[in-house]
Amino acid sequence: MTSSFDSLDTPVAVIDVSRMERNIQRMQQRANGLGVRLRPHVKTSKCAHVVEAQVKAGAQGITVSTLKEAQGFFEQGITDIVYAVAMAPTKLQQALDLRKAGCALKIVTDSAAGAQAITDFGRANDERFEVYIEIDSDHHRSGVRSDDPLLIEIAQVLQSGGAELKGVMTHAGESYKCSTVEALQAIAELERSECVKAAEAIRNAGINCPEVSVGSTPTALSAVQLEGVTELRAGVYVFFDLVMHNVGVCTIDDLALSVLTTVIGHQPEKGWIITDSGWMAMSRDRGTQSQQCDFGYGLVCETNGKVIDGLLLRSANQEHGVASFEEGSRIDVEKQFPIGTRLRVLPNHACATGAQYPAYEAVLDNGDVQHWSRMNGW
Amino acid sequence: MTSSFDSLDTPVAVIDVSRMERNIQRMQQRANGLGVRLRPHVKTSKCAHVVEAQVKAGAQGITVSTLKEAQGFFEQGITDIVYAVAMAPTKLQQALDLRKAGCALKIVTDSAAGAQAITDFGRANDERFEVYIEIDSDHHRSGVRSDDPLLIEIAQVLQSGGAELKGVMTHAGESYKCSTVEALQAIAELERSECVKAAEAIRNAGINCPEVSVGSTPTALSAVQLEGVTELRAGVYVFFDLVMHNVGVCTIDDLALSVLTTVIGHQPEKGWIITDSGWMAMSRDRGTQSQQCDFGYGLVCETNGKVIDGLLLRSANQEHGVASFEEGSRIDVEKQFPIGTRLRVLPNHACATGAQYPAYEAVLDNGDVQHWSRMNGW
Repeated sequence: MTSSFDSLDTPVAVIDVSRMERNIQRMQQRANGLGVRLRPHVKTSKCAHVVEAQVKAGAQGITVSTLKEAQGFFEQGITDIVYAVAMAPTKLQQALDLRKAGCALKIVTDSAAGAQAITDFGRANDERFEVYIEIDSDHHRSGVRSDDPLLIEIAQVLQSGGAELKGVMTHAGESYKCSTVEALQAIAELERSECVKAAEAIRNAGINCPEVSVGSTPTALSAVQLEGVTELRAGVYVFFDLVMHNVGVCTIDDLALSVLTTVIGHQPEKGWIITDSGWMAMSRDRGTQSQQCDFGYGLVCETNGKVIDGLLLRSANQEHGVASFEEGSRIDVEKQFPIGTRLRVLPNHACATGAQYPAYEAVLDNGDVQHWSRMNGW
Repeated sequence: MTSSFDSLDTPVAVIDVSRMERNIQRMQQRANGLGVRLRPHVKTSKCAHVVEAQVKAGAQGITVSTLKEAQGFFEQGITDIVYAVAMAPTKLQQALDLRKAGCALKIVTDSAAGAQAITDFGRANDERFEVYIEIDSDHHRSGVRSDDPLLIEIAQVLQSGGAELKGVMTHAGESYKCSTVEALQAIAELERSECVKAAEAIRNAGINCPEVSVGSTPTALSAVQLEGVTELRAGVYVFFDLVMHNVGVCTIDDLALSVLTTVIGHQPEKGWIITDSGWMAMSRDRGTQSQQCDFGYGLVCETNGKVIDGLLLRSANQEHGVASFEEGSRIDVEKQFPIGTRLRVLPNHACATGAQYPAYEAVLDNGDVQHWSRMNGW
């Protein structure tokens, strides 16, 4: 379905396809240069067209955050899929159905109980699940530490239970809190070294562990070397966002996702411009609140993408956004931004903003606009 | 579609129908007692089944936050609809189409430019739009002040341009910041008196202004009297949430919406229980952060709805939630909440959490579970 930019209803999530393509090339070249496969995390876009562009650029396999995504991308012809959330026993039937249908779905665990549930279910259903063990490289969230005896116990449960230990994987979520090259390089090296150490511990116990999978957008773009790593996972780089800009791994001009909005009112004496981009359009994500530059609910641009200096979406209700310049600004907002004016808002967090929409409007280089669906839900 | 509670995949948004029915009765009885019509704001549920229960209890007409909702509820047979967001000129065609199809859609403006756009478009299309003027009763967001000469100017633009001035409406959004009976009663009275004053100013200028429409859940439940008001709008009361609990207008046992989740892992030495209810399942709404009790991303309950004292969803990534007791707790989380355990999480903000789902699972008194769709998007 093709339409024109001017005919789009607001609010709507817009992809700048040429920026997206540039971001995809950049990450693919990083992975190639570091000598590892790139397995993009598609939870950011959840969109077949976006992932098609990633695969075309050289991605090998994908990472998903839900089995709904796994199902959807499998139907699009992608078979090599890692579901990167520790497996809930109740979801094993869904994973089994996918594998029986021909999807080379890999699943994840970080506990002996989880590994046991996987092998029990696999044996009962004559299925040899391929499993990654999740490693905790930075004390951020899930995973087992590389020096924890539990790591070998899990590997043994999987092996003796008839599952295939595919490898180890980690995600240095703490990297989102960094903002200097030194800190980013350090956490990238921690992510790499802890995951490699875990693989070696398993191998030293006599168990095969072919894959060493690491990644996050900040570490992928900062790692100096990835010795011992086989694959890189990263997601948000495909669109980037204001949080990534604050981390320091992209410029504002790299941001490929924005929300097109319309001015619907003013409070002139307060300098407020009321828009139809409330939190339903932007998401409630305030990821830049704790960073060096707080962008409120987003940074406002002209429709051509040119940033309007100092104009932030400073607050949001469900269907109302309030944009304003810094206090004391003398701009006549009614005159400069009359009712009906269209603006674009760059979001804090592309994954969260995208999730508010059933689809994107993708603006191509020639100005055509295509409607690209997302795979929301579970 | 009917299923059983135990067969539900997680995460999923669950409605406790008997609590919802009780909440609906409570608000309807308030409106009846105050002698005003109740026009519920359906932006909270966006669900035909929920709104059907509200209408059955006595609601007259509905309020919507998007024209998508207007379209959807009109298709369900509801014709008396207020679209309570200032009208963007580009959305007038959609409003026109609805009215031509037989929907008695009312639209809103708070500016002379907006009123002019409505009357110009109405004249060009031979349509007499019904319009509310939005009043700013509490300096919260949009609307014109009751004593601003602009108010009469807007009314005159509408009248002379051939639109029907239906009335005035306001929403005291500042009431969400209250937490005492006195403060709530004061803001409810401010909402009432400012809106009535605006209607009188218009009438004194010789222009008809039949409707005086006020409301928010906190003010609707706190107003001592609504002299001069004709209709009450409120939305979140249908489910209530932790924000409303902190405001003081409901008990925890009134919360009718929760997220059913599964335990997928632990970090035992930190006391962390990892669940599959991340921010995608809960929304990024942290509405209780600035209130008297910060509930993190939600308050955790057993599947039967019993609150687990002190267990909060303290942080969230996209598909991972981290629940824990207060620091220093000696509970063995692996033993007490083994992998596969199902829990329910009460959300900060029902409107935001509901919006993360394409549908609810509604648990009836007899234990049956029905799948109730939402009208998401724009």
